[in-house]
Amino acid sequence: MTQPHPFYAAHEATLQRALTAIAERTYWSAYPESPSPKVYGETAAADGEAAFRAYLGADFPLDQPGTTDRVATESSPFGVALDVRYPHVTDLDALITAARAGMRAWRDAGPQTRAGVCAEILDRLHRNVFELAGAVQFTTGQAFVMAFQAGGPHALDRALEALAYAYAEQVRTPASAAWEKPAGRGEPLRMTKTFHVAPRGVALVIGCNTFPTWNSYPGLFASLATGNAVVVKPHPRAVLPLAITVRYAREALADAGFDPNLVTLAAEAPDERLASVLATRPEVRIIDFTGSTAYGDWLEANARQAAVFTEKAGVNTVIIDSTDDFVGMCRNLGFSLTLYSGQMCTTPQNILVPAGGIETDQGPKSFDEVAGGIADAVRKLTADPARGVELTGAIVNDGVLRRLEAAGGVGDVVLAAQEVKHPSFESAVVRTPTIVALGADAAETYGEEWFGPVSFVIATGSTDESIRIFRRVVGDKGALTASVYSRDEAVLDAVEEAAVEVGVHLSTNLTGGVFVNQSAAFSDFHASGANPAANAALTDGAYVASRFRIIQSRR
Amino acid sequence: MTQPHPFYAAHEATLQRALTAIAERTYWSAYPESPSPKVYGETAAADGEAAFRAYLGADFPLDQPGTTDRVATESSPFGVALDVRYPHVTDLDALITAARAGMRAWRDAGPQTRAGVCAEILDRLHRNVFELAGAVQFTTGQAFVMAFQAGGPHALDRALEALAYAYAEQVRTPASAAWEKPAGRGEPLRMTKTFHVAPRGVALVIGCNTFPTWNSYPGLFASLATGNAVVVKPHPRAVLPLAITVRYAREALADAGFDPNLVTLAAEAPDERLASVLATRPEVRIIDFTGSTAYGDWLEANARQAAVFTEKAGVNTVIIDSTDDFVGMCRNLGFSLTLYSGQMCTTPQNILVPAGGIETDQGPKSFDEVAGGIADAVRKLTADPARGVELTGAIVNDGVLRRLEAAGGVGDVVLAAQEVKHPSFESAVVRTPTIVALGADAAETYGEEWFGPVSFVIATGSTDESIRIFRRVVGDKGALTASVYSRDEAVLDAVEEAAVEVGVHLSTNLTGGVFVNQSAAFSDFHASGANPAANAALTDGAYVASRFRIIQSRR
Repeated sequence: MTQPHPFYAAHEATLQRALTAIAERTYWSAYPESPSPKVYGETAAADGEAAFRAYLGADFPLDQPGTTDRVATESSPFGVALDVRYPHVTDLDALITAARAGMRAWRDAGPQTRAGVCAEILDRLHRNVFELAGAVQFTTGQAFVMAFQAGGPHALDRALEALAYAYAEQVRTPASAAWEKPAGRGEPLRMTKTFHVAPRGVALVIGCNTFPTWNSYPGLFASLATGNAVVVKPHPRAVLPLAITVRYAREALADAGFDPNLVTLAAEAPDERLASVLATRPEVRIIDFTGSTAYGDWLEANARQAAVFTEKAGVNTVIIDSTDDFVGMCRNLGFSLTLYSGQMCTTPQNILVPAGGIETDQGPKSFDEVAGGIADAVRKLTADPARGVELTGAIVNDGVLRRLEAAGGVGDVVLAAQEVKHPSFESAVVRTPTIVALGADAAETYGEEWFGPVSFVIATGSTDESIRIFRRVVGDKGALTASVYSRDEAVLDAVEEAAVEVGVHLSTNLTGGVFVNQSAAFSDFHASGANPAANAALTDGAYVASRFRIIQSRR
Repeated sequence: MTQPHPFYAAHEATLQRALTAIAERTYWSAYPESPSPKVYGETAAADGEAAFRAYLGADFPLDQPGTTDRVATESSPFGVALDVRYPHVTDLDALITAARAGMRAWRDAGPQTRAGVCAEILDRLHRNVFELAGAVQFTTGQAFVMAFQAGGPHALDRALEALAYAYAEQVRTPASAAWEKPAGRGEPLRMTKTFHVAPRGVALVIGCNTFPTWNSYPGLFASLATGNAVVVKPHPRAVLPLAITVRYAREALADAGFDPNLVTLAAEAPDERLASVLATRPEVRIIDFTGSTAYGDWLEANARQAAVFTEKAGVNTVIIDSTDDFVGMCRNLGFSLTLYSGQMCTTPQNILVPAGGIETDQGPKSFDEVAGGIADAVRKLTADPARGVELTGAIVNDGVLRRLEAAGGVGDVVLAAQEVKHPSFESAVVRTPTIVALGADAAETYGEEWFGPVSFVIATGSTDESIRIFRRVVGDKGALTASVYSRDEAVLDAVEEAAVEVGVHLSTNLTGGVFVNQSAAFSDFHASGANPAANAALTDGAYVASRFRIIQSRR
């Protein structure tokens, strides 16, 4: 067995710390989330922005097989011209052949070397995190700080978490074993056994529009670390963050002596349906996808040759029963609804409140007062456009705008969406959230996902009915998050039991600086795989274990 | 958190030893494989046989919901009348409702208690292992020693191995964690996180005719240990071994204070297609199946609501290039072909030999001499019917007889199958193996599985061509085992590389007491999940990790 590549030694301490973190699941982070110059240096932000701007209106520096002309498909929610021209995949056979060419050497390099190279890729992305943040900001419409955090350090943390699980899973079986079975009075039976980690094949990562790095990194690094080649198919409106990712991945692979084509970008022209074509290629054996339920279901049904990991739509739900901190509750929920204009797969949509109102530290509050309290919190956060846009960012695409418009007609508008003029980007499409009150009988409306800045405050007969609605809607449609506010332990226990049964992660009485739509890598699981919103969790043993196989040889 | 049930303490040392074994994968066994009175006591064999015989011609003692009348569907390959009458499942809703009723208490009991109860079930089965062996022998046609070993200790070892993986997977995430995130100069953010192990739902185990316990136990115990209820659907011709299993499982569950309906038997009348009906029930979320490729593929395509683990047909292949021990090679292969009349999913079928012959310790041997040497070894083992039947056992069903008959017409018969009169069971259906020589161009014949005592010695142009055929046939049709004989390291390496690429476990130069068709629990993996013969391996992390989900609650 050859020695691991020096990249392994360079990143071994980080990897070991990550292994401890996933075993403890207490707080840890490898990549600082503050974009402050004190952390990253005085020139880091400006240098990163310049690097980002240098990509605009130019050919993106990627030299890949299977591509001929160039495509530019992005359109910034901030109205900034991007016009980055990516290599256009026109010869899939050539792309896949190239992806596979380096797999044997990558496989034979072993788990340590692969982990080292993957950690080196993360390190290089981290060194260029402001460049990455700019790319995330201007393709997704996230405000800068969020684009930096969710698109940079948080995404890198999730990637490292997936890498740690993938590494642990591979080394739990020894590379070899000496087997000696007693045979009565005779000589024992002896065999030398070798356990090869064999990749599944080519892995396909299908990126999404809103979180191109955060949602793609776990699958990308879990597949790469387990020996597979990875083809990254970005969302046509959010290519740049993944193009930058692929660029640095290829450089690190090449520097370590491996074929850079182990990681490739599959950019497409509009309407080419490249994801579907790739997903059903026999060489593609793993698929990671984040996006619509319809397409996720299609992948699960049609990409039968592959292990398919999907994160789809869901109906995130809040149950409000009572609270000891009415102001904190409203502020916390208001922030969750406002952040990135509710365009997170984890943003609450349905807020279930008894029609008769609730008990609070400020005395009884009527249904309208609860709805109004949350609406006021949103108003406060968005009243000043200059501050508001730093939370809301911009609207990612027209589908969100259409839903926002439709929402005004389905119930009583508690809070109307406002069109906001962005102080820095005059063509930016900015909207504040809307909140609509519905009755419990409006299940046709609130029983579907309204992705974007649309939430419903739903008047139920009682908290018991709220729990029944929660069970039914999440059971049928799934959810990535759920939360409950109550000062009654019995209610908290009942909701926790319901959450476990319908398979959704639950947050309880969030009134401070932790928000239901944010999850912490190395501690919180994202999705569960136990309800229709996702068929797997990021990131656990089940997420990585079937990305490779053990092939045994005994002599 | 409540204390684990005392069954955990009772079996903790065994479980810990099993956890060590799966991490080392050196030799270990928990259940002695010798049926000797020195190991099991003077009266164990007779007592067990009596217990087995007491089941015959009687109502099997199982009291389950959803059943009304009784069914008897078994017919012994040894010609012994069985006529055991099992509860007939006629009300699936009632059965599934009953299976689910105890799941919450079982879930809340936690991984330790579940592991303890599962280990107790194994212990009780082991205490009744001779009874189990009789049931396996007379339903499968295995000779007694094999029925005892493969149906008893080896099956129990595999079950314990699966249990160990399942336990390890659940406890790798802590039950709870205190999360504290620094927040600049302010108070840190603090959350208490609880990680619930939540089962998938009802698990279905579909047993096979030939190895009712060995092939069913890993899935049964992996699912049960992770909190699922298990419905055991036995093969209609091999019900008794699983009925006995279910009986003792239910007793142990009840003794530990759990609902015995967490494990139920789903016996059916002929042609009820109960497996298909159960497999597509929405409550059924895990399926383990061993059997035909056609039915395994059907399950994978149609039981889309479930995680489906299948072991299907394959074409096990031997590459003979050269040998330092011609006699040992022929003897070893002859034994593998003779054992249980080749009715193992791991028995070699295709033996690839260069037409120009091979180099051996006895000088060059022609193709015919190699084929003849293996045939002689089989002849030697089967010449004396009394000794022969202790290896071959009986033919499990008519399908095997039909293939055996057909095999005589597809090539040059090197060794003809013989009808043997069993010295103890006059109606037993016993046949010795046939060996047929084919050319490399007969891929239509050798490219399919001929389950039973049929093997082909195939004349190839060279070892290189043998490797190409191996790659092609195993790549297309899959295999559970492969082996190679060569004294050339380059050939061994080339075959090992081919084996890793097509995803089949390889044995090299077996000439002694280890046989390609036998795998050792805790050391060898059975199947790989990397070729068409199976979509999973018994038993590794991937086999257990998706049988449950982690649902998180944070306060």
